[in-house]
This record gives sequence, C-alpha cells and structure tokens, in this order.
Amino acid sequence: MKISILKNELNEAIQHVSKAISSRTTIPILTGIKLEVTHQGVTLTASDTDISIQSFIPAENDSEVVVHIDQPGSVVLPAKFFVEIIKKLPSKEIMMEVKDGFQTFISSGSAEIQMVGLDPEEFPVLPDIEGNETITIQGDLLKNMIRQTAFSISTQETTPILTGILWHLENGEFKFTATDRHRLATRAANLDGTEEIRFSNIVIAGKTLNELSKIIPDQNMLVDIVVADNQVLFKLDRVLFYTRILDGIYPDTSRIIPSTYKTELIVDTKKLSEAIDRAYLLSREEKTNIVRLQTLEQGGIEISSSSTELGKVREELEVIDFKGEPLRISFNSKYMLDVLKVIDSEQLLIAFTGMMSPIILQPQDDSRSKYVILPYRTTN
Amino acid sequence: MKISILKNELNEAIQHVSKAISSRTTIPILTGIKLEVTHQGVTLTASDTDISIQSFIPAENDSEVVVHIDQPGSVVLPAKFFVEIIKKLPSKEIMMEVKDGFQTFISSGSAEIQMVGLDPEEFPVLPDIEGNETITIQGDLLKNMIRQTAFSISTQETTPILTGILWHLENGEFKFTATDRHRLATRAANLDGTEEIRFSNIVIAGKTLNELSKIIPDQNMLVDIVVADNQVLFKLDRVLFYTRILDGIYPDTSRIIPSTYKTELIVDTKKLSEAIDRAYLLSREEKTNIVRLQTLEQGGIEISSSSTELGKVREELEVIDFKGEPLRISFNSKYMLDVLKVIDSEQLLIAFTGMMSPIILQPQDDSRSKYVILPYRTTN
Repeated sequence: MKISILKNELNEAIQHVSKAISSRTTIPILTGIKLEVTHQGVTLTASDTDISIQSFIPAENDSEVVVHIDQPGSVVLPAKFFVEIIKKLPSKEIMMEVKDGFQTFISSGSAEIQMVGLDPEEFPVLPDIEGNETITIQGDLLKNMIRQTAFSISTQETTPILTGILWHLENGEFKFTATDRHRLATRAANLDGTEEIRFSNIVIAGKTLNELSKIIPDQNMLVDIVVADNQVLFKLDRVLFYTRILDGIYPDTSRIIPSTYKTELIVDTKKLSEAIDRAYLLSREEKTNIVRLQTLEQGGIEISSSSTELGKVREELEVIDFKGEPLRISFNSKYMLDVLKVIDSEQLLIAFTGMMSPIILQPQDDSRSKYVILPYRTTN
Repeated sequence: MKISILKNELNEAIQHVSKAISSRTTIPILTGIKLEVTHQGVTLTASDTDISIQSFIPAENDSEVVVHIDQPGSVVLPAKFFVEIIKKLPSKEIMMEVKDGFQTFISSGSAEIQMVGLDPEEFPVLPDIEGNETITIQGDLLKNMIRQTAFSISTQETTPILTGILWHLENGEFKFTATDRHRLATRAANLDGTEEIRFSNIVIAGKTLNELSKIIPDQNMLVDIVVADNQVLFKLDRVLFYTRILDGIYPDTSRIIPSTYKTELIVDTKKLSEAIDRAYLLSREEKTNIVRLQTLEQGGIEISSSSTELGKVREELEVIDFKGEPLRISFNSKYMLDVLKVIDSEQLLIAFTGMMSPIILQPQDDSRSKYVILPYRTTN
C-alpha cells in the first residue's frame, strides 16, 4: 500500500470512525483503525464489536484529487496515536507507505513517522446485511427523534434492555420509546414508503444512537436504515454505521400513559422552564429535586420548592388555558427540566389525572410526542 | 437591610468573591457570602481563610443608580444557592430585604425567594494591613508574570513551599521564581518607584495567583500590592484580594542555572513547539514523555522519539543560529511544551552545558525570563 492523501479528508474520516474505538478493549486488533486502499479510494474501519463504523474517502471529489494511489493494499494502525498525529501533521498532504511486516511510513512536510502496523487479515469482517428491509428517513428528523427520547433511557446496567430506545414501525408510523421506570419519552413520525414494513421490539442502545447523531451531518440528508435479525446498519453519505440490537423483550409501556385527564393546562414552555429551573436550584441543595406545582384559585399556577436549611422559592405563572379540577402535585424537577429542554414548541400541554398519577407533557404543535413523569408521593 | 439592586452589577460582584468560597470548609459561616449595605453601596465578602475577596458595588455609577438603599444593614447568605439563583432571576432589578432572625426576602419579576441568612457578626473580620509597604504594577504585566511562572510550581503537598511562587524585589527589579525540582521558571521586570523597597522570601500559592489572574480585568489597569508580615493584599478597581504568605524558606535556586553554555541554538519558537508536540504524542503513549534533541552534522537539529510498541517520530528542524559543540540530549517533552506555550517571543535561545546538565530556554526578545529543565539520563 502506497498513497498520498489530503490531510483534511483523512482527518474527517478518522473522526467518524474513531467513535467506534473503545479504550477498554482487550482485543489488540480492535485498538486499531483498518485502512483499505483500492483504486477507488480509501476505506477506514473501526469496531468495538458493539458498534462498527466504516468511512470511505473517494480518490476524487468534484474532480479534485483527494487520494493519489501508487499501490493498493491494507493495514491496521494503532488508533489513538494515529488519530492524534494525523491532526498535527505540518503539511496538507500526507504520504503513507506500508512495507514489510506492516511497518508503515508516514511523512508530511519535515515530519517522518514510522508506525508498527498490524495484519489487516486479523480485523473482524463486517456483516453483510444489505439484503434486508430498508427504510429511509431525513437525517434531521432522525436526530430529533433521538434527542427527544434518549435522555429518558435508564443508565443502570441491571436492566440492560432499558438502556436502549425501542423502535416500532407499523402502518407507516415510526415510533421511539425510552423509559427508566420513573419517566417515559415517546416520539413518532410518519415515514413515506414504509406502509408495507412492520417491525417491533427493535431496541438500540441510547448511547450508540447519541454517537450516531454526532456523525449525521447538519445538512439535512437522507439516511438509509437496514434492519436485520440482530443488527442495524445506518447508511449515510460516505459512512456506514453498524450496531447490534439489544437482547431481550422491551416492557409494555402502553398502560402507563393515562387516556383521560382530570386537569389540563396550556402553558408557555420557556416561562415554565425558567420557573422550574429556579425552584430546582433550591431542591438540588436538598438532594431531593422535589418541586411542587399547584393551581391557584384566582387562576394561574404556583411553582414552589422549600428547604429547611436554605429557605423557599415561590413563583406564580399565568396559564394560557385551564380545564378541569384544581390540583397540587410534587415531582422530580430534574426530570421535568429534561423534558422541557427537548420541547421545541412555544406552548405545551401539561395534564394530570390526580396527585398520585403520571404527569403528561405534550408539545402543543406536535401530538406525536408525549412525555410522562411519575409524581412524588409527598405528605403535604 | 432593604435595597433594590441591578442584577448585572450584583452578579459581577458575586462572580469575583465566589472564587474565595471553598466547598470543603467545615466552618458554616464560611459557606456564605457576607453583604454589607451602607449609603455608599454594597460590599460583598467571601473567605476560605487562605484567600479573602471583597467586592464593592457603588450606589451610583456614571450617574446611573445601581443600588437604591432603603435601609443599611448586613447579612450572610448561603453562597452556592445565592450565586446560582441570582444569575437566573427573571428581571434586571432585584429587591432584597432582611427581616427578623436574618430571614432574607429576595424578589425579582414573579419570582419570590426566602433565604435563611446567618449573623454577619460571626463572619471573620479582614485584617487591616493598609499601612504596610505598597508597590504598584500594571495588571497585564502581573498576569503575564503569573502565567509565565505558575506552571512550574510543584503540585505535591509534601513540600508546601514549592507550591508557591517566590517573589523577590530589590533595586527596582521584581522577580518571580517557581520550581518543582525538575524544572524552574523565572521572570523579572522593572517596577518604577520601588527602588527604595526590598523584600525577599515572599511566597504565594500558585493556585491563588492563578485565581487572582482571572479577576484582573483585561483593560490594562494598575494593581496596588500591599505586603505585610504574613499577608498580601491586591487592590484592584473595586476588588480587594487578600492572601496569606506561605510559611517556610524557599530553597536557593541560583546555583541551578548555569552561567556558561557549551552549545547555543536560536530556533523558531512555533516550529520547535510543533515538532516537539508530535514527538510528545508518541512519547506519551510510552508514559515516559522522553523526546530527544540532537544537532546534525549538516546543520540543523533533529527532534525524535521512539516506542518499541508503536514506532518512531523523527523530524529535522532548521536553526537560525548555532554556536558551540554538537550535542544529543533527552528531556521530558511535557515540561518543554509547558515552557514553549508561555514564550511569546517568535524566536528563542536554547542552551546546553552537556547532556547531563540543565537545559536553558530564553525568549529572544526578553532576557528577563529564563526557564530551566533537567535532562533525562538515558543510555543512548
């Protein structure tokens, strides 16, 4: 293998695949990035067995030569050192040559680097799952669906299935669900052309989907998703992102969400968020995060929190609309703020069926998102 | 005490004094910020006994009313909660009133906060050291002198005196010295009007001086420094910053710096820095940080590093001037990079007296700074 390649392009591809490198792996070959050179370009691959990422650098881009290929070939290079040294090379062009025993010579400007490479034959082969069912989604929509649900996953490894986001596709509706048993986030969207496809109990680690989000470019482009038996493949422009499906059955969450409400409020998202944030500051010092919401006789609501050591925070807030019974309820303000942060709508519905029943939050301009928070059972 | 005050001004003063609040203090009153209201304005004070900071908010600023004083008085408020809630209050004006038992009522827009205050009589009184010797220095110069020496202090609490920066003033020359026994940084400057003042063995914690640096405004203003027996007071525009002088005798470092050199090189600071940074990346993986510098027969120098596991980095660098004997020396590249980061001069002198003797670095445009790094004793 012998090439010269533009630093920026190589660097960008490295940044993409390096998200799949685990620093804790015990398998030496997986501490490396695999480079494969053909006459079409360079393919980089990294894997931690749960996630595998592949990024392709074409030899030419808009008729500019990106990679000059003297000799195809392949090698596996130590990821951590490779990632950092490439970023810091002095010239915009980099020469790479693999010699006997995978010794790799890299030069750029006055810098000369010799790297101990590994045999690419030892690197795991990625699964071929192209033949499976494929759906297509806008990159922005996928990123939003992840952002608006991933915060509700469980971080406890004792229930691994809850560290994932549940995917359900039926009658053209694609739905994400995440819960840690104290709160629940759901977000659905219609996907054109998927009316004939159905899948359920596809659960993908929330952490993995957050990593994927970082790779999806900001320009709104299409992402193809291939769903196989135990793997999902995301196909972006020049990046392939493989991840495994979590084992186990996701719990049925449909009965958690109440279907009728006793109290319904429409409020300004930003104003509610800021008032709860102030009460949260006090509740955090008490290490309980308990904040109280109560409807007022003269209209409006009161947000409050108190601490025997520090004092009290209290605030009245107008409501845009009020339906139903008066109410007083306590909840984890951190959970509430997490929801308010991902609601992009200016107004939201907050609904209750009683002081011991789940609190529902829903953006006013999007009935396909629904958030549930369990209240605290307090004595006053 | 009863006032209304502009949020921005209160917030700025809080940010200054909050640097003196320790989260680990066992003295309850020191977890608070003291507010003292007179008809002239509001004084905030915080202290962790090592550092005390006082910030004054005048009632009027450029004929704008900043504080409206209904009733003077004072109170101590819980720092952490106070700092954060003030930042997040909804209106630009804040009302504060202290009632019975130091209960403090704060309101801003729709938000009402009740805080459990403490008795200001319990708060330690700051020492009166105004009568002592005072020197005056430009804020920018003081910040630079701190930045260019503080990185060389020891972080080991076993030799507390070396966690400080040594100050020496004699014949109008003000000099900072810091060392952790492996490296040494010195920076001196002339201070007008100090010809008659002499002090030595004034040692101030490097950490404290770094905190002070953050408070000194970017507009170049004068800082008065009052030096008493065991305390130093920095007087900025509206901030008083007190710190104690470290106990003990600072070691004599004068003999560490060689007076004659066998090899002298003038090099480009940026190019040397980048080349060492690349070699450092490899040496860091070996956990030794060892990088080698050697003069080349054909002129110039070579920077290199090698690792049995990963490979080699090698780079030739031109020198602007070369005097003396050929040389080959190994050093801790992290220490060298720390020095190169604070040298603002485009070119620097790097001088040697042998492969076992200290390496000297000195900015070309500033003979008042000198940096020493001890070499590694390696076999090759």
